[in-house]
Amino acid sequence: MKYARIFVRSFFKWLLIAGVVGVISGGVGTLFRLSVENANVLRQANTWLIFLLPLGGLLIVGCYQLCGIKSPIGTDRVIGSVRAEEEVPVILGPLIFVSTVITHLLGGSAGREGAALQLGGSIGTHVGKLFRLDEKDMSLIVLSGMSGVFAALFGTPLTSVFFALEVISVGVIYYSGLVPCLVSALVAYSISGYFGFDLEIEKVLAVPDFGLFPVLRVAVLGVCCAVLSILYIFTMDRVDDIFEKFFKNPYLRILTGGIVIVGLSMLFPSGHYNGSGMGVIFQALDGEADWWAFLVKILFTAVTLGAGFKGGEIVPTFFIGSTMGCFVGGLLGLDPGFAAAIGLIATFCAVVNSPVASILLGIELFGAQGLIFFGIACSISYMLSGYYGLYGSQKIMYSKTKAKYININAK
Amino acid sequence: MKYARIFVRSFFKWLLIAGVVGVISGGVGTLFRLSVENANVLRQANTWLIFLLPLGGLLIVGCYQLCGIKSPIGTDRVIGSVRAEEEVPVILGPLIFVSTVITHLLGGSAGREGAALQLGGSIGTHVGKLFRLDEKDMSLIVLSGMSGVFAALFGTPLTSVFFALEVISVGVIYYSGLVPCLVSALVAYSISGYFGFDLEIEKVLAVPDFGLFPVLRVAVLGVCCAVLSILYIFTMDRVDDIFEKFFKNPYLRILTGGIVIVGLSMLFPSGHYNGSGMGVIFQALDGEADWWAFLVKILFTAVTLGAGFKGGEIVPTFFIGSTMGCFVGGLLGLDPGFAAAIGLIATFCAVVNSPVASILLGIELFGAQGLIFFGIACSISYMLSGYYGLYGSQKIMYSKTKAKYININAK
Repeated sequence: MKYARIFVRSFFKWLLIAGVVGVISGGVGTLFRLSVENANVLRQANTWLIFLLPLGGLLIVGCYQLCGIKSPIGTDRVIGSVRAEEEVPVILGPLIFVSTVITHLLGGSAGREGAALQLGGSIGTHVGKLFRLDEKDMSLIVLSGMSGVFAALFGTPLTSVFFALEVISVGVIYYSGLVPCLVSALVAYSISGYFGFDLEIEKVLAVPDFGLFPVLRVAVLGVCCAVLSILYIFTMDRVDDIFEKFFKNPYLRILTGGIVIVGLSMLFPSGHYNGSGMGVIFQALDGEADWWAFLVKILFTAVTLGAGFKGGEIVPTFFIGSTMGCFVGGLLGLDPGFAAAIGLIATFCAVVNSPVASILLGIELFGAQGLIFFGIACSISYMLSGYYGLYGSQKIMYSKTKAKYININAK
Repeated sequence: MKYARIFVRSFFKWLLIAGVVGVISGGVGTLFRLSVENANVLRQANTWLIFLLPLGGLLIVGCYQLCGIKSPIGTDRVIGSVRAEEEVPVILGPLIFVSTVITHLLGGSAGREGAALQLGGSIGTHVGKLFRLDEKDMSLIVLSGMSGVFAALFGTPLTSVFFALEVISVGVIYYSGLVPCLVSALVAYSISGYFGFDLEIEKVLAVPDFGLFPVLRVAVLGVCCAVLSILYIFTMDRVDDIFEKFFKNPYLRILTGGIVIVGLSMLFPSGHYNGSGMGVIFQALDGEADWWAFLVKILFTAVTLGAGFKGGEIVPTFFIGSTMGCFVGGLLGLDPGFAAAIGLIATFCAVVNSPVASILLGIELFGAQGLIFFGIACSISYMLSGYYGLYGSQKIMYSKTKAKYININAK
């Protein structure tokens, strides 16, 4: 009976606290989502805005410096905070919000989930302190914040729950965060849902029947996603290093990066590679994509983020995964739209090392019909992407090839 | 490059070895499934078979004694073997096969997945030795065998993969087994699929629209599933203890148990509670169930398994979960068929402590439309079922209420 009381008390405690986190992260997440969306719309209507990108960069660095936050912290700090290694400064929230909107408005190539995780982490930390939670509970409330903002952003509540539980330490799932994260995600999802979701995909995939050849084709595509993920992460790291090596001064660094992006945008005037690039993702899911699109997007994103602009890496991952999938899948004899969906989720899986979240993402975006193929592509891309990962502070607890405890950081 | 070679070699190694395991476990699993199915059909056509149950019990104990295997090992031993604590004797395979078929043929109340896991574990061990795998790889090949036979039995490949990865140590997912388990499960699923699946549910659930009241109703149902799971496990343990205390001799124990089941079958002559009871599960999913059905089924199952008959606890879990869900859900104002589905997966989740596998089970059986509700019910039943679990050798690595490492055995 004593045990029962502990569980019931804990249940209601989380219902309350995670509910509060859900309301805040839902509100903030919705506001953030709409801001980024409108920034993209505005930019597409006013193509000259791209020329302000270098100036916008200076503004971003200025804000960070003003708040006393040195440049290279971000999502990694949030992940670290779940393991109680670091704390998320509350100011990180507003900072990342404004700088991501600036980046999207002026045509940098970036996502938004990096911002989402940081916003969520910052909200969780704040609420947790308010309720005087202890250290162990603080991790869970940070996770709740992350999954709340993620759900508000992408409209995929279960994916956001398992993403938060899974991404911190690969091989370990923080099940104790299941109820807190779910409560926060559902509340945030409901709030955000009132304003409609831009990732809502009504399209029914042309899923092939289960059989040897479709399985082999999807498996090969999974291998391509693993290779693509390594190329993406490797390029980002290299460009990062180059910027850091040649431009010690963060103002100079972001100014140069901004100018490079302006130059690249002259070369590729379609505007496809600026901002989030949602339009291109939808086109790929409809079965149309340029074969080189993913290479150009990697370049744009690596320069944007390496130079110090803000945002995230997940929507660019969706972009490169879906366009590559669309092109390669077509060559393999798969329906290009279906292959784009596979490419999207399997590349996501490879860069965040979170198979459960990735499979759920596939289901929440495209329905259950392709479930087996989602599982195949994600399992393979997970295994073959090795220990590369978007988040350097992500711990890989277990080897990918043996049942062995390794506990290393993602590369 | 060296790293790349390790991953690629490991990938092809598992493709080969897990493929072999998949073929064998698919073949054996199919044979086993058809045998159990036909045993149930035969029994239903020949109701007098129930009177042979006590004799059948003697036969089962005789076989085990003859092979030198003392009574109380089984699925727990398989789970232990994944953690390299024990080894699965190969003879366990044929033994559990025959005794489960006898149990079903003569009207004991049991499932079959216990047998499936033991068959799979035994196949995995055998193949692993053949390929001279080292200790770490042996765990993965045992998991592959488990997921292979499970997939052949239930026709739910992804569920079986994540069940195997998740069930051993709650809080840790053996991701390194992802590709091996998936390969084995897909091969076994394909083989078994040729013969049709009896759990194939074509029915579309009447899923309510997302909103506060449906969420609350499903949440309450999730709480009921948690309570039900504790009642079920508690009863099984008590009946087990009583049998063991009063009947030291295993022959006498199973004889008595058999006679009790014969008596109970006279009391409940519908035959609903003998064997697997699939018909009742389907009826519940169609929205019809007696309110007391789950109580009677718990009694039948506890006596059957406590006395020493063989089978599993999962199909009885489906039975009690779906009938309880159908009844309680109706009271709560949910569609009874939908509520039965929720009851089935959330009770499963509570007894095996595997939320990912349970959510996937919901999707593979009923499609993705109810996904959010599956997530809600499973999260709640997972948390509130406490540290009870069907498998005493299952390790609960992390607390359910805090982000804390605890490493205890399931009760």
